Amino acid sequence: MNDCAFCRIVADEAPATKVYEDDHLCAFLDIRPITRGHTLVIPKRHAARLSDLDAELGARVFRLGHRLAAAVQHGGLAADGANLLINDGAAAFQTVDHVHLHVIPRKHGDKLRFVKGLVLRRPHDPESTAAAIRAGIAAKDQGAQP
Amino acid sequence: MNDCAFCRIVADEAPATKVYEDDHLCAFLDIRPITRGHTLVIPKRHAARLSDLDAELGARVFRLGHRLAAAVQHGGLAADGANLLINDGAAAFQTVDHVHLHVIPRKHGDKLRFVKGLVLRRPHDPESTAAAIRAGIAAKDQGAQP
Ligand SMILES: [Zn+2]
Ligand SMILES: [Zn+2]
Repeated sequence: MNDCAFCRIVADEAPATKVYEDDHLCAFLDIRPITRGHTLVIPKRHAARLSDLDAELGARVFRLGHRLAAAVQHGGLAADGANLLINDGAAAFQTVDHVHLHVIPRKHGDKLRFVKGLVLRRPHDPESTAAAIRAGIAAKDQGAQP
Repeated sequence: MNDCAFCRIVADEAPATKVYEDDHLCAFLDIRPITRGHTLVIPKRHAARLSDLDAELGARVFRLGHRLAAAVQHGGLAADGANLLINDGAAAFQTVDHVHLHVIPRKHGDKLRFVKGLVLRRPHDPESTAAAIRAGIAAKDQGAQP
């Protein structure tokens, strides 16, 4: 698995700005974000494609994406919405062969910035961005109704 | 809820080509498909945004999307991959205010057809398409290892 970029991030053998981690999952900032706060959620166990991913672990990945969609709207990022996206397979533009869910924060009127981000994919101050997302996760968890 | 287009589909008050249905979920062909087999998965209970959707029901939506991604690759559609996408909020291009997961089958070398589909969004023989997806779900379920 050492040749998988995301397995190396899980093992802390490659740098990444992590915003969340538990026994099964890891979430970190996309190194080439489309918008500020663009985050990837991955299962820690290597799965190249959705067909290699257990249904329950897939549901865990999605549940965290769902939480992050809330976190980027409740924390300092103050997003108005989000795109949640899995590209499964090279035919669907998957570029790293380890399943990942994109969480892409969106703001009203950001259409041009979004298109620009698609082309440029430049980092936006990862540390403050990650701090804002972590604060959003914490705020959301505190306010959560079970 | 009668003014929600997707609630009307759930209630069979509006036409749709359904490929799957259970107590919680419904999946039907997008009326303006980007590619052949473009399917929407929705919770039957109305939820406008991800923030209105219970985490477990969200996980159910995703699990079905995961199954459909397999179904379009194993059935007659013979896709090579799929995009799974939720647009949450108008800022993120959500157009119908009832949470829906897009499952967009992809084939190797379909990039131009994909772009054309984004622009045209024309139906491709819904009945044979739905039959191919249903066959893919059945094939996949039969072959599934628990
Ligand atoms: Zn890996
Ligand atoms: Zn509805």
